[in-house]
Amino acid sequence: METSTTSNPNVPNYPRIMIGLSRGQEEPDASLVAAEARELGYDFIILPIAFPNYRRFLFEQLVDSVDIKETKFMEEWRKGQPFCREDLVVKNAGQVSNWINLDSLDYNIRINSEVILRQQLTWIGHIGITAALIPFPSDSFMNYARCINSIFGTVSYINMWIKIPLVLEDETLGSKETVTWERWNKFRTLCENHVRLSIVLEVTQNLPEDNILDRWFAEPIKAIFLPTTIFLSNAKGFPVLSKRHQAFVRKLIKYKPHFVIECAADGPNHASGGLSAYQEYVHHLHRTMPELTPVEQFALGYHDFLQSPLQPLMDNLESSTYEVFEKDSTKYALYEKAIHHALLDHTTGSEEMILEAAEKAQKRVRVYAIEKNPSAFVTLQNKKAEIWGDKVTIVFSDMRSWKAPEKADILVSELLGSFGDNELSPECLDGAQKFLKADGISIPASYTAFISPISSSKLHNEVAAYKDLAHFETPYVVMFQSACELAKPCQIWSFEHPNRNIAVDEDGNPINNYHNTRYSKMTFNIRESGILHGIAGYFESILYKDIMLSIHPDTHSIDMLSWFPIFFPLKIPIYLPSNTVLDINFWRLTNSHKVWYEWCVDPSLPLGYETVSFSPSAIHNSLGRSSWIGL
Amino acid sequence: METSTTSNPNVPNYPRIMIGLSRGQEEPDASLVAAEARELGYDFIILPIAFPNYRRFLFEQLVDSVDIKETKFMEEWRKGQPFCREDLVVKNAGQVSNWINLDSLDYNIRINSEVILRQQLTWIGHIGITAALIPFPSDSFMNYARCINSIFGTVSYINMWIKIPLVLEDETLGSKETVTWERWNKFRTLCENHVRLSIVLEVTQNLPEDNILDRWFAEPIKAIFLPTTIFLSNAKGFPVLSKRHQAFVRKLIKYKPHFVIECAADGPNHASGGLSAYQEYVHHLHRTMPELTPVEQFALGYHDFLQSPLQPLMDNLESSTYEVFEKDSTKYALYEKAIHHALLDHTTGSEEMILEAAEKAQKRVRVYAIEKNPSAFVTLQNKKAEIWGDKVTIVFSDMRSWKAPEKADILVSELLGSFGDNELSPECLDGAQKFLKADGISIPASYTAFISPISSSKLHNEVAAYKDLAHFETPYVVMFQSACELAKPCQIWSFEHPNRNIAVDEDGNPINNYHNTRYSKMTFNIRESGILHGIAGYFESILYKDIMLSIHPDTHSIDMLSWFPIFFPLKIPIYLPSNTVLDINFWRLTNSHKVWYEWCVDPSLPLGYETVSFSPSAIHNSLGRSSWIGL
Repeated sequence: METSTTSNPNVPNYPRIMIGLSRGQEEPDASLVAAEARELGYDFIILPIAFPNYRRFLFEQLVDSVDIKETKFMEEWRKGQPFCREDLVVKNAGQVSNWINLDSLDYNIRINSEVILRQQLTWIGHIGITAALIPFPSDSFMNYARCINSIFGTVSYINMWIKIPLVLEDETLGSKETVTWERWNKFRTLCENHVRLSIVLEVTQNLPEDNILDRWFAEPIKAIFLPTTIFLSNAKGFPVLSKRHQAFVRKLIKYKPHFVIECAADGPNHASGGLSAYQEYVHHLHRTMPELTPVEQFALGYHDFLQSPLQPLMDNLESSTYEVFEKDSTKYALYEKAIHHALLDHTTGSEEMILEAAEKAQKRVRVYAIEKNPSAFVTLQNKKAEIWGDKVTIVFSDMRSWKAPEKADILVSELLGSFGDNELSPECLDGAQKFLKADGISIPASYTAFISPISSSKLHNEVAAYKDLAHFETPYVVMFQSACELAKPCQIWSFEHPNRNIAVDEDGNPINNYHNTRYSKMTFNIRESGILHGIAGYFESILYKDIMLSIHPDTHSIDMLSWFPIFFPLKIPIYLPSNTVLDINFWRLTNSHKVWYEWCVDPSLPLGYETVSFSPSAIHNSLGRSSWIGL
Repeated sequence: METSTTSNPNVPNYPRIMIGLSRGQEEPDASLVAAEARELGYDFIILPIAFPNYRRFLFEQLVDSVDIKETKFMEEWRKGQPFCREDLVVKNAGQVSNWINLDSLDYNIRINSEVILRQQLTWIGHIGITAALIPFPSDSFMNYARCINSIFGTVSYINMWIKIPLVLEDETLGSKETVTWERWNKFRTLCENHVRLSIVLEVTQNLPEDNILDRWFAEPIKAIFLPTTIFLSNAKGFPVLSKRHQAFVRKLIKYKPHFVIECAADGPNHASGGLSAYQEYVHHLHRTMPELTPVEQFALGYHDFLQSPLQPLMDNLESSTYEVFEKDSTKYALYEKAIHHALLDHTTGSEEMILEAAEKAQKRVRVYAIEKNPSAFVTLQNKKAEIWGDKVTIVFSDMRSWKAPEKADILVSELLGSFGDNELSPECLDGAQKFLKADGISIPASYTAFISPISSSKLHNEVAAYKDLAHFETPYVVMFQSACELAKPCQIWSFEHPNRNIAVDEDGNPINNYHNTRYSKMTFNIRESGILHGIAGYFESILYKDIMLSIHPDTHSIDMLSWFPIFFPLKIPIYLPSNTVLDINFWRLTNSHKVWYEWCVDPSLPLGYETVSFSPSAIHNSLGRSSWIGL
């Protein structure tokens, strides 16, 4: 499903949800069930592919039989005899028989299960339904995984949705709360991380802790099963969900899955409302979702969409890019506030909000607006002619090479990227600070980059789809949705302006750029196991004194739209067991014509008194071979 | 170095060894050292690139200096001022200065170390020497690895040999015996497993246990450093090595490294023989190597050379292949012995050794020789005309479709592959057993496949060089040399003949091939950490009663040449910490026109009472998409 604007005025921006009905494996009559479901307000039904009686084939075996005819029949069936019409429940969608046993110790049951699985999935593929529901893997599932993997190779276009309960209730070993994710993770890895293998998540009566629940948001969830048994009864006997279940379902709605009410064949479990009450309740949760914030609304079309970061020094931005930025009233308000305070403390400044700030501060200032983009310079000329007049001197120049007619008290710039320094703000401001007075102020005064380890099979697949090394060594600007932070962000480095501690030539220009290189190693404690797919990056900036601008998740400036986070991928995803100690090494490097990042990760596991290091990743983007920002 | 026949008649088949001399970092005069080394019988010398005095640059730093001239000099030096002539020791080979410190906490030392490293390695690249010796990484080496990795990207063709001691004597933490391999392993992984990064192994006074030593044989060792301090003195004061050191050096000789005697600047440590005694002693070890066995001689040209397994059913073998087989007197002797015993127990049999065996057993037999290869059939016709006469009936047919004129007492075949069943012996013998009497004998009576987890970065690189998926999903026949078994082989499955427990049609042919599918999961305990690159395969076969033919390393039939082991690669190498429990899953699968293998590995680590599973590999070769044997 793609994002679409909804026609329901009560649910602005949330896509319509589809709620289906499942009545287990024992349905007697598909058309009756379908008619009933339609009447009860459900959008679709889920049915088994074959009637339970088909199970008889599981126990058939070839013997060197006295009855050659019997033997031949079985062999023909194994070779691909069609279903008998009367064995098929579903003519248009379906659930693989849950009694097949691909990892049986009995060789014949294994062989027959594979025949049946292939037969049912081939049927699903044939009738043009793109997804089949396949059972949750039991304790042993190597052969099951092998069969599913091989079916991807033969049945074109088929999607398989594997049904996974949040909590495994009858497990005797291990943590019940984490075992289902571990099993899913192993299963999909065995299946080569196939993009057509997705999840149907079955919500259980018991919900795991939030950080275990969060892990699922990094996974390809296509549908949510809500068994009627997990619903409570309200005072009037109608089905309702607990507060935690409500919150989880509301969070899931943002990921646009299908919902399925799963009901035993003998009907609903609640006194009032009948079967339709369940779908009505889920629709109610959907209708009463909180309104989207401006950032959420803005982000709707961008979720998990990889964009290359800007190259503001090498390229000139297009006007549409400026237009997006100019929608961001939060950013401008923060800048205005910072300038206002700086003017109160000091004298003089450089653009539109500077004038407003100056007026508020009732100071007389001379403003120079320096612009290197010839097209944007036209806009400045219009502004000057129509609004600013003599209050602003506009200058067409790169700030690094401009010869200022006088030294400034305040230098205002907005050259920040999603990682703070990744659009070369440090280099630009080093070049510009020569026309700042000795006690002059830079707005921003500093900025700090943050990183955190992140899991997102979706983003990994997006990058992998390019099938080359370069895309795995490129950072992307991306609004995370199907992603899960494996640990909280840590700061890795900062830049402060003006930076008087650098060597400059006779003209006041830095004689090299070594002082803007950085190296940092951060250590993260990974609480729950997960797959590491890359590194998320954020920044905080102090504009002036206590006025901060931030895209760090914990301190994000309210309603600010201008920056999405940045994502540094890893070539090879790494499984991190719970309690992994993860070192992330990050470099900011430079030569005479470019700046680039290199990164690598180095996990280890405490084992008694020792620390067992597993293999680290390779160092990514050596010498900026795949991605760099031009000076 | 390539294998070459040596001219020294005392050392048949071992290549000549080269022994060099290293006098540390303090050499005063390169040409004097070189002349002396030549006189002492050494083949080459190793010298530092720069004189120790060059170290002064390490502490230089840029300041916003009053002395612009001074600042500029430093900046020019960093930008790539050439060496001063007097700073260079080496004009033709060399060792990077061991005082550089790329992971210093001091920012300037780090920057300057990188400049110096790059300068020295660029010089080595320039003068056309292909290898530079680089220092052993200290505790922190992330930035060192990053610099080395980046130099591979800029200095073409340079090879870097990293010097690694077997045991780290002054380490305070962790196991001294394993830390150097762990460090090497992390370093090369960070450097993207670059093929131009190799090892110079420094033999230490203390030697680790054999299984820790063995791990080095899977690594790219280019040279062996033997410090004079590890030599003992014999009764006459001459330097000699301990028994264990001797054995290790002799084992190393098979890998054809260069040897280097490493000597302090103040000369040798032994009373007699001077500096030349060391090289004479190593040459002595070389001269007194045990003679190569026939298998070792035969294998010399094949070490670590990947060959595709035969397709004997689909293709017809060339006569040169038969010629190799016919050199193998061991195999024919075992077959003859098996037939002899079978004849004594039974009556009748099918080829040359059968006749001989029959004569020995003094039985009258009728022999049918069935051959499907038209070219080989010519050879049989010649044999019949010249030797056999009426004793043998030769038949041009595929054994699976031949209509035998009478049922046989003994069915002799040799269709074994390196993995036992991988040349489709099971399928052929199922087809042929219809012309065997009810109590008839098959020679071989059974065969069993064995697997073990194996580490070999060399074989991994060979497969990776094809840059495609298919080669990672193909088994290879290969004589292992640069490889290390991470655990002892385990048997995974067997085939027995004749197999009366299968369903056959009216003509006695099997109606399907399901009974020849296999699935097995074997568990291995990995004692020492290592990188898993793939799975080694072997077989044992019982020809008749107690007559066994084997390529299993522990039971290998003496001097038998016909089979090398088989190697199943893994797409992504997996680091296994010590004490890993490794499950290997293996399938033999079939459809109507081919047989193939699928495999995957699934490691886990015992952590207290729990077992932490890390990510398994994907299942390789799904549906035989990359490799298969045609029926």
